[in-house]
Amino acid sequence: MDRRLSELDTAWSRLDTAGAAAKDRRIEALFDAEPDRLARLGVSAAGLDLDLSKQPWSLADLDAALDLARAADVEGRRAALFAGEIVNASEGRPALHMALRAPRGADFRAAGQPVSGEVDATRARMKAFAEQVRSGPTRAIVHIGIGGSDLGPRLIWEALKPLDPRIELRFAANVDPNELAQALTGLDPATTLVVVVSKTFTTLETLTNAEAARGWLRAALGDAADGHLVAVSAAPDKARAFGVPADQVFAFWDWVGGRYSLWSAVGLSCAVALGYEVFERLLAGAAAMDAHFAKAPLEANAPVLLALAHVFNRNGLDRPVRAVVPYAQRLRLFPAFLQQLETESNGKRVTADSRPAPHATAAAVFGDAGTNGQHAFFQLLHQGTEVIPVDILAVRQPTDGDPEGQKKLLANAIAQAEALMAGRSESDVRAELQAKGLKPAEIDALAPQRTFPGDRPTAFLLIERLTPEALGALIALYEHKVFVEGVLWGINSFDQWGVELGKTLAARVLGELEGGPAGRHDPSTAALIAKLR
Amino acid sequence: MDRRLSELDTAWSRLDTAGAAAKDRRIEALFDAEPDRLARLGVSAAGLDLDLSKQPWSLADLDAALDLARAADVEGRRAALFAGEIVNASEGRPALHMALRAPRGADFRAAGQPVSGEVDATRARMKAFAEQVRSGPTRAIVHIGIGGSDLGPRLIWEALKPLDPRIELRFAANVDPNELAQALTGLDPATTLVVVVSKTFTTLETLTNAEAARGWLRAALGDAADGHLVAVSAAPDKARAFGVPADQVFAFWDWVGGRYSLWSAVGLSCAVALGYEVFERLLAGAAAMDAHFAKAPLEANAPVLLALAHVFNRNGLDRPVRAVVPYAQRLRLFPAFLQQLETESNGKRVTADSRPAPHATAAAVFGDAGTNGQHAFFQLLHQGTEVIPVDILAVRQPTDGDPEGQKKLLANAIAQAEALMAGRSESDVRAELQAKGLKPAEIDALAPQRTFPGDRPTAFLLIERLTPEALGALIALYEHKVFVEGVLWGINSFDQWGVELGKTLAARVLGELEGGPAGRHDPSTAALIAKLR
Repeated sequence: MDRRLSELDTAWSRLDTAGAAAKDRRIEALFDAEPDRLARLGVSAAGLDLDLSKQPWSLADLDAALDLARAADVEGRRAALFAGEIVNASEGRPALHMALRAPRGADFRAAGQPVSGEVDATRARMKAFAEQVRSGPTRAIVHIGIGGSDLGPRLIWEALKPLDPRIELRFAANVDPNELAQALTGLDPATTLVVVVSKTFTTLETLTNAEAARGWLRAALGDAADGHLVAVSAAPDKARAFGVPADQVFAFWDWVGGRYSLWSAVGLSCAVALGYEVFERLLAGAAAMDAHFAKAPLEANAPVLLALAHVFNRNGLDRPVRAVVPYAQRLRLFPAFLQQLETESNGKRVTADSRPAPHATAAAVFGDAGTNGQHAFFQLLHQGTEVIPVDILAVRQPTDGDPEGQKKLLANAIAQAEALMAGRSESDVRAELQAKGLKPAEIDALAPQRTFPGDRPTAFLLIERLTPEALGALIALYEHKVFVEGVLWGINSFDQWGVELGKTLAARVLGELEGGPAGRHDPSTAALIAKLR
Repeated sequence: MDRRLSELDTAWSRLDTAGAAAKDRRIEALFDAEPDRLARLGVSAAGLDLDLSKQPWSLADLDAALDLARAADVEGRRAALFAGEIVNASEGRPALHMALRAPRGADFRAAGQPVSGEVDATRARMKAFAEQVRSGPTRAIVHIGIGGSDLGPRLIWEALKPLDPRIELRFAANVDPNELAQALTGLDPATTLVVVVSKTFTTLETLTNAEAARGWLRAALGDAADGHLVAVSAAPDKARAFGVPADQVFAFWDWVGGRYSLWSAVGLSCAVALGYEVFERLLAGAAAMDAHFAKAPLEANAPVLLALAHVFNRNGLDRPVRAVVPYAQRLRLFPAFLQQLETESNGKRVTADSRPAPHATAAAVFGDAGTNGQHAFFQLLHQGTEVIPVDILAVRQPTDGDPEGQKKLLANAIAQAEALMAGRSESDVRAELQAKGLKPAEIDALAPQRTFPGDRPTAFLLIERLTPEALGALIALYEHKVFVEGVLWGINSFDQWGVELGKTLAARVLGELEGGPAGRHDPSTAALIAKLR
């Protein structure tokens, strides 16, 4: 163990040294120096093509990063993850989302107990339920959940929904009554299902919205209302007590983390609204990425290489922010999904064995669909005072509408990656302005403004077509990337204690807003409560 | 001038020193030491209440920050802004968005030329057009624009739309054909207006979508199609040449920047769909904030104080990311709007007089509506290895639905601000776990994970009710905050040269994707183009 720790320290030192050296050279220069750069930094997995050659690392740096992965025992931890060991130590649980999407008849075990049978049984129930609903009068589903019970299904629906769906899927997450009010507007309770998703079935927001939605159903349908309720929970008793008919309660398990739960019955609304076969294709795509991640050697392993590239920026080059820009309107929610996946999993300051984290952990992640982002925050990416690495996602074949638009979209994705790396020198700008006939004083004033430093890294991920399989593979790629990062940082990526304190304090403040006795607060908080009582 | 520069350098040094000292103390401790903290760090403007007391600055630091504002001549630059001087030097233009929302009969001048008459005339045309459309058969508007021609109107619509609007407003920005396809789905061309918004009327995305939408209208309506086209542009000739009837072309001016344009005819779609009087109330709210910003002394000036608090974090404490969390579902697009406003305005590395920026400029901004964000990225805010300051927005009175939900929402907003500052000590956690009966070894393992460091700053902005006036004031508050930051950093907040290079390269790559001769590229870009040709 000591030897391993010392190896790990040495590997981190090498990465830091490599990062420091990378500051003194340009990415572009590496292409001349390294003829096999493109080959070694490109990897294909489960139908996705990843190009990490526009990253600041040299091939020697890549080797240092791979050594870090070995020193951190990524292979051993990966094996433990797939074996269903208790990788989520602080909550005493495995993290077995791979079991949810495995081919039928797999044999995953959670802490030794077989789970694949239950998973297969639930999938069979989901299929039967989806087919039954789709052959009936239902025209809308209102999906009520928040965080992990919301962002995944929302992403899947927006990515895969037909332009004019036969069953419409709407979402309500926020405790702000506006979101549910919007979701219910225009719907007929008689042809609407309300699907309530909460792991514990105690989440404040979800229960508040579920009660309001149940009230809406009961006001219109009376005794028949509860037949329109569906629940997905790891606490099925509570769901039944809420009034959901037993045959409309779907279970999942404590070894499924919220932000890894879309593959379980949490995806039921999507399975119904898209058709169950679409949901199975999504699972199959993720399973293909699982198989790649489990078996590919580290140097040809897409999640591992992506994690290492991100860690090289985060730690080697001390970059605390990353952008993600899918050039696909259907993936516009992917940045928000990823924000949760990455920051809730790895926004930690304590290691899995409860020491202060010795290295910086999760970067802040933000983004929006391209080309829209180009007209919003790309100014910062190109000419801001910080370097912000960017993950660019592009889809080759269009799903809807005019293929000419798709070509323009792809041209922009490629051009932005090129522009971020190449930049534009002041001498080029001066030559152009001179050719345009500007006076020397005007050129002096304008040229520095129109210069781009470049040398800003991108990871380029190319998807052939946005099929359910490709989406499943994409999400699983990032899930495993996050896992690898957690291993490198020595943290538990599967707990989220950072959301607890706010909940406790909110309950206290709510009591005071509702007229309870005033508690002890700082003067600013006390003043706010007094104003709002 | 030299004296001013030296004063400015001294003021920056004082701010840096103050920031360094702030690292060694906790925000909470300042409340005990400074009895008038709440009074001096709270400010009300145009109906908004801003509390900056949970920020890391002491009152002495505030004084240092105010000295910096004076040394940077914020007052003089503010006067120049309102006087219509050429504050956007690199493009040779004033920035006069305040003229667009001034009370009727104002007398704003752009570089000496009166503009208020034209503004009033356009507003009168907008009013007449809105009333005419609203009394006719139109049931939907498809608003086509991108960046500044999209984010502002989208924000306004989502914030203020009725639950079941008589005229529906949809948006298409992306060149990805999916977005327009979604926007047109289910609409009847005979009762739909297409509003095309582009300052230059040459924007690739907007023209691509406008042509497709015009095709959709013409296929259904033949000769009558063009009567369904409306355009908003600073190049009205081009709009007429596109086929828009002259009386449906609305102009704006080169002194209106895209991200400051929602107050102009760029807001026409909203003025029609919400009713013109709603649009005027929005303008009035912004005008009230303008009046406050123009006249209030620096130490009681909301945009100035907010800018100084952000700069204290950005520069004094070297924090390159900020989060913004509106506890209001109707404001969920505000973080995306602000992301553009802040990063496109101030994501610059060169000063207005073309020297390298001596200080770090715009932070990356991200966020989502609360409480949703609590279940997504708040883990990072509470327990990540970086301190990320947060702007929290809360609305006192609900707009829709159940008032109980609103109380829960407010309780969460207040509690999160409290939790971020107070944190939770390890000894508190240990006591709680002990009371729960955990064993010492379990407590040792868990307590560090459940500890919160706290001392994470928030700015708390309280809005009484989300009226059009309040929304206008909110947007104007941040516009002027961005201006003040630009003055402190010495940059031109009104140009955006960082978006140019990508456009140029995209045109080149598009030519190659369409079969043109291969150009010179780095190997990675060349390989991508070869794959996608």
